[in-house]
Amino acid sequence: MSKRGMLIVLSGPSGVGKGTVRKAIFEQDDNKFHYSISMTTRSMRKGEVDGKDYYFVSKAEFEKEIRNGGMLEYAQYVDNYYGTPLKYVNEMLDQGKDVFLEIEVNGAMQVREKCPDGLFIFLTPPDLMELRHRISGRGTDDLATIDKRMAKAVDEIEMMQNYDYAVVNDEVLNAVEKVKTIIRAERWRVKRFLPDYKKRLGDDLK
Amino acid sequence: MSKRGMLIVLSGPSGVGKGTVRKAIFEQDDNKFHYSISMTTRSMRKGEVDGKDYYFVSKAEFEKEIRNGGMLEYAQYVDNYYGTPLKYVNEMLDQGKDVFLEIEVNGAMQVREKCPDGLFIFLTPPDLMELRHRISGRGTDDLATIDKRMAKAVDEIEMMQNYDYAVVNDEVLNAVEKVKTIIRAERWRVKRFLPDYKKRLGDDLK
Repeated sequence: MSKRGMLIVLSGPSGVGKGTVRKAIFEQDDNKFHYSISMTTRSMRKGEVDGKDYYFVSKAEFEKEIRNGGMLEYAQYVDNYYGTPLKYVNEMLDQGKDVFLEIEVNGAMQVREKCPDGLFIFLTPPDLMELRHRISGRGTDDLATIDKRMAKAVDEIEMMQNYDYAVVNDEVLNAVEKVKTIIRAERWRVKRFLPDYKKRLGDDLK
Repeated sequence: MSKRGMLIVLSGPSGVGKGTVRKAIFEQDDNKFHYSISMTTRSMRKGEVDGKDYYFVSKAEFEKEIRNGGMLEYAQYVDNYYGTPLKYVNEMLDQGKDVFLEIEVNGAMQVREKCPDGLFIFLTPPDLMELRHRISGRGTDDLATIDKRMAKAVDEIEMMQNYDYAVVNDEVLNAVEKVKTIIRAERWRVKRFLPDYKKRLGDDLK
């Protein structure tokens, strides 16, 4: 059996552009990651596809999964559930494949507890003006909701300290390149590299 | 004043090719590192230049530096001293410049104690046959010395676990590219990134 894959978690404050960066990574020719599709109870936005952007489920269905221990992480955010079903992630990792999660900050901290060997990358805005611009620019929320989202986002930036790496999302392709560089480098982290290397050297090494 | 530079330490077992990889990095056009030249009491090899490959000094001079607390690290290896003078390294780091050390494994562990925020990269052979081939290939030592060096090298590989990253030196340019990728990624480590980022966001962030 091959060695277990790497769990890569991309997170960051609401509105920072996690989804855009994740999509750009997966659209590149050399992409070999397996994307774990999240489950949510929020309503589908224009252009979204069930089973591709999210698994869109009812509140009752989501809560049943929680009760059955079927969620790697989940969070309630602006009155909706978001979460990652555990089954697919574990299957891929066991097959030695790398799994990529793009999730909210609360969920990421739950994953950190369950999978301390994961790679945790925090996507962060160049500055707060830019973040407000992006949150407003989505055009789906009124002013009070934008203010609420902004306050929450600033709190979320504080959580950066619990991550391994932070990447500023100034330009999507810049951010994509940095995330890919981090993932490449992380494969040579001694804690990931040493078990296989010892096997390779065999009995020569104690 | 600018932020303190990053101390990058490349180490690995005797004969693995640290010097070749380091030289290749410094010969590349985009190199911005400051190389800290080591001090040694071993005799100059053919083609080596004093003040470029090493500072070649007498045993008495080296021991005087040790007594004066002037060494960041030093080690005695095959009856000779090797070490890094402290002064230049600190000056460069204080100016916000990145300093690159290529040193023996014992010395690297002394640096780790004094500079826990340094970046420690371990260069390692593809396998032990290849390492023996390289140690022999140098052509300067007899069989007994080669055996002694081999035994020491195998012990030194065990020290990999004290490093941040490990890079296999299969091909020099491969190893160079990996070392450079690691250094790039390491700039976005949260512990290095966060202090500056907080300053940038200013009062908005608590």
